[in-house]
Amino acid sequence: MAKYAIGVDFGTLSARALVVEIGTGRELSSATMNYPHGVMDEYLPDGQKLMPDWALQHPQDYLDCLAHTIPEAMQKSGVCAEDVIGLGIDFTACTVVCVDKEGTPLCMKPEFLHNPHAYIKLWKHHSAQEEANRMNAIARERGETFLDRYGGKISSEWMVPKIWQTLQEAPEVYAATDRFLEAGDWVVLRLTGAEARNACMAGYKAMWSKSQGYPSREYFEALDPRLANVVAEKLPGKIYPIGAKAGEITPEAAALTGLLPGTAVAVANVDAHVSLPAAGLVKAGDMLMIMGTSTCHIMLGEQERIVPGMCGVVEDGVIPGLMGYEAGQSCVGDHFNWFLDTCVPEEYALEAKRKGMDLHQLLTEKAQEQKPGESGLMALDWWNGNRSVLVDVDLTGMMLGMTLTTKPEEMYRALVEATAYGTRMIIETFEKNGVPVQGLYACGGIAKKNPFVMQIYADVCNRQIRVARSNQAPALGSAMFGAVAAGKARGGYDSIVDAAGEMGGVDTRDYRPIPENVAVYEQLYQEYVRLHDYFGRGENDVMKRLKKIKEEQRR
Amino acid sequence: MAKYAIGVDFGTLSARALVVEIGTGRELSSATMNYPHGVMDEYLPDGQKLMPDWALQHPQDYLDCLAHTIPEAMQKSGVCAEDVIGLGIDFTACTVVCVDKEGTPLCMKPEFLHNPHAYIKLWKHHSAQEEANRMNAIARERGETFLDRYGGKISSEWMVPKIWQTLQEAPEVYAATDRFLEAGDWVVLRLTGAEARNACMAGYKAMWSKSQGYPSREYFEALDPRLANVVAEKLPGKIYPIGAKAGEITPEAAALTGLLPGTAVAVANVDAHVSLPAAGLVKAGDMLMIMGTSTCHIMLGEQERIVPGMCGVVEDGVIPGLMGYEAGQSCVGDHFNWFLDTCVPEEYALEAKRKGMDLHQLLTEKAQEQKPGESGLMALDWWNGNRSVLVDVDLTGMMLGMTLTTKPEEMYRALVEATAYGTRMIIETFEKNGVPVQGLYACGGIAKKNPFVMQIYADVCNRQIRVARSNQAPALGSAMFGAVAAGKARGGYDSIVDAAGEMGGVDTRDYRPIPENVAVYEQLYQEYVRLHDYFGRGENDVMKRLKKIKEEQRR
Repeated sequence: MAKYAIGVDFGTLSARALVVEIGTGRELSSATMNYPHGVMDEYLPDGQKLMPDWALQHPQDYLDCLAHTIPEAMQKSGVCAEDVIGLGIDFTACTVVCVDKEGTPLCMKPEFLHNPHAYIKLWKHHSAQEEANRMNAIARERGETFLDRYGGKISSEWMVPKIWQTLQEAPEVYAATDRFLEAGDWVVLRLTGAEARNACMAGYKAMWSKSQGYPSREYFEALDPRLANVVAEKLPGKIYPIGAKAGEITPEAAALTGLLPGTAVAVANVDAHVSLPAAGLVKAGDMLMIMGTSTCHIMLGEQERIVPGMCGVVEDGVIPGLMGYEAGQSCVGDHFNWFLDTCVPEEYALEAKRKGMDLHQLLTEKAQEQKPGESGLMALDWWNGNRSVLVDVDLTGMMLGMTLTTKPEEMYRALVEATAYGTRMIIETFEKNGVPVQGLYACGGIAKKNPFVMQIYADVCNRQIRVARSNQAPALGSAMFGAVAAGKARGGYDSIVDAAGEMGGVDTRDYRPIPENVAVYEQLYQEYVRLHDYFGRGENDVMKRLKKIKEEQRR
Repeated sequence: MAKYAIGVDFGTLSARALVVEIGTGRELSSATMNYPHGVMDEYLPDGQKLMPDWALQHPQDYLDCLAHTIPEAMQKSGVCAEDVIGLGIDFTACTVVCVDKEGTPLCMKPEFLHNPHAYIKLWKHHSAQEEANRMNAIARERGETFLDRYGGKISSEWMVPKIWQTLQEAPEVYAATDRFLEAGDWVVLRLTGAEARNACMAGYKAMWSKSQGYPSREYFEALDPRLANVVAEKLPGKIYPIGAKAGEITPEAAALTGLLPGTAVAVANVDAHVSLPAAGLVKAGDMLMIMGTSTCHIMLGEQERIVPGMCGVVEDGVIPGLMGYEAGQSCVGDHFNWFLDTCVPEEYALEAKRKGMDLHQLLTEKAQEQKPGESGLMALDWWNGNRSVLVDVDLTGMMLGMTLTTKPEEMYRALVEATAYGTRMIIETFEKNGVPVQGLYACGGIAKKNPFVMQIYADVCNRQIRVARSNQAPALGSAMFGAVAAGKARGGYDSIVDAAGEMGGVDTRDYRPIPENVAVYEQLYQEYVRLHDYFGRGENDVMKRLKKIKEEQRR
């Protein structure tokens, strides 16, 4: 009798539940639902105006999504709840909930209804930048070695900057908060009644490491005396490795989801990271690119190495027993969309209409006729800063080589190539620092739908690229972790490696480097490196100076 | 009784005749005519295919234009031929005619009708690049000092490369050529029967100087033994300063134009150079920018200085008694047009239509709302190479500072600013090398029609800019030289300085720097200079390497 697991992927705007067959990875059905409150970045539900750079969510939305998507997906699949042995979820991170002793988010309590700090600070809530800056400065002054694990820089998106911002701007919320939790861990708490922080989020977003724990009391005290005991007071509880079982569906959660009480639930995970086993990747040397509006590179390694400019390295953070490295490019699809929206003339829009295409298809059609280097163009892929290797949000875009005969499709291709060079730069940085990249894989919208882009990546990186079979790699990966939480005895797996072997995998179609393109891109990449270092490593900080002038002029 | 002069401006595609009142500069009427053969850059009249980079003209077109435009302008003006005392013409240069002993262009002789080399090589005939390269290499080897007068580089557009190309590719045409003439000088010959080469064209385009003459026999011999006596054999005749009288209208020319025999005719001149007196500029320290698709900077100085990267310095080349310096930017309006054609989205095209504007007006409206530096963008104005200061056709465009919120009008403004920085770089290069720029003036389409661009130039250069009053500065300047050829005794002037005082001048509207803009542009310009030098002076020759790869890939 076949058994099934369910994965729920909580994204920025919606959640998706997927029913998967254990043993094969066959995806039976899925259901999605948008969060009723969406991203609150302008107003609270009571109409209160939010400050710039705020981004909040409402915890009830997550519960509503569980209540709708799981039953709908189950019904479509025809699977009985008895045959569902495990559930896993992945979540955006760092997305922070402040709860009282009972685990109730403060924003759900009448006395905090009108306090923005009582709501969930979404990953892209960016108004704790000052706190992040001070955290970095003080960590550097004190020579804190934990910084090395994060490419030398703490992001304003992470847990402690958000907590500190709450303390500073709303001490009453901080005082009333019994614990700060990742939203993913909070959803698991609501499903199982068990609080089981996961090593992935704690490691990548809360500066925790398996061997060293959190930063020291002294460091937190140096930030703010009131934070001295923040770990003991506000971040208590054990941290579980990825793949651990958090608990089982409670009767309340069973009533909510239609699953049976006792169904195993895995600890939460991050969407990018959970995609590796979905692509069958469980061994050191594998790198997965999750390619969408931005690209996230998750890499497995044997040992902890200090790789300059990566986003983080976490033991057990992706696959138990291995180091999980994270790196990223802050704008990939976003680049291309900016170009389509901003730089393509009416003539092309009319041509696309005539041909029954969208602009993206038309530009792809034109751009793929070009040979590498034929345009004479070169770009730096920093329209949204540089997330990895340089870790610098103040870098901006650059393009050169334009002449009076330069065409839009040439500039478009140059942007695609720039993102490929950026990926190669990340790969080479890993390799130079003792983390060899043996296999290159991709998943996400671009990987599945854009052979033009993927071939350029294969040519630029001079590597075969294989693409995850699933179109819903995060939800599949979560379901697999659900099957691991259930364990082999109950029809699941004892390890994610076993699950990946049976349920994960790649497409038969892959992308292989074309030797004549590789030869040209080799030359072009050397030009990219030189410009990357010139503008990115302090030789000419013109981008930062221009940004400063820009800010002054906009004041 | 008022007296009149006529100026005829021979452009690339058409000629324009203008009737002007002496003493006031009042423009009574004008008439234009396109050249029937236009620019022959694909086919000869017999259908013969031309090679790439060729650009020919037919001498009959110039005569046809004289025969139509002068009578038409005269008729519109109501002026009698008796009251026209002088005629001046300006011409594109270097535009080369090969003639027989009688002054008949070889292409008008049956035996050469089918030989492309027998036709007129227009200024933008670019297929003598190899000859120009060898001329430069040999001049450098030999330490020829004349190179200094041309910013260190001979252009393929000039006289000797074109002659040499004829010798190499069509020795029969070279042998049959009695003299090579500038087309402007040839038209004057047809009007007056007198061959009077002008110092402006000889100086800027044929490497001649008043004090040194042409390059030496040894230099020409080193190029090609057959060229040893090229000056004596193929470029004979006296060279006249600007403002000299070439002769008088012959009876044949009178029949052609409707002017009276005996009407004074000035030696020919170049369109940009003749515009200075039209703007009233006759003294050392004045610089005129002739702003159109490209910009030409003509500058007057007391002494001959070696200014690196200028296009040429010619004694008496612009105003008798002064050094005339020429510099230029190879793409200005062309830049903006490229952007309008290539980089503005459909949404803007629709908005422009709704507002009853063209795209250029819409972008200007949006761009002029921005403050300097507000976009965070910076560009190098090299979409068509760099003509002055760096003198390098292999440089290409660059823009940096783009983010995901960068808008088309911001990029458009950055291009405008880049051309203004380029102008400031030219001005500063003159000043650093002992040629002070005291007054900055402009004429041409952009100067007359685009206050947005002009204000940016005033702010970037931190200088008042005054604009020539006439919309047809070249034709007006030519008419003034016609009045000088006639002389004071016949109702004209004895010098161009006198003519400029009465007939030339500027608009009452000028552009003055706005102090707060100047302060920001001062910072931005320093960034421009650094990038200019980095990409332009050999620190990173990425543009050239990309161009080489481009050429290889297009082969």
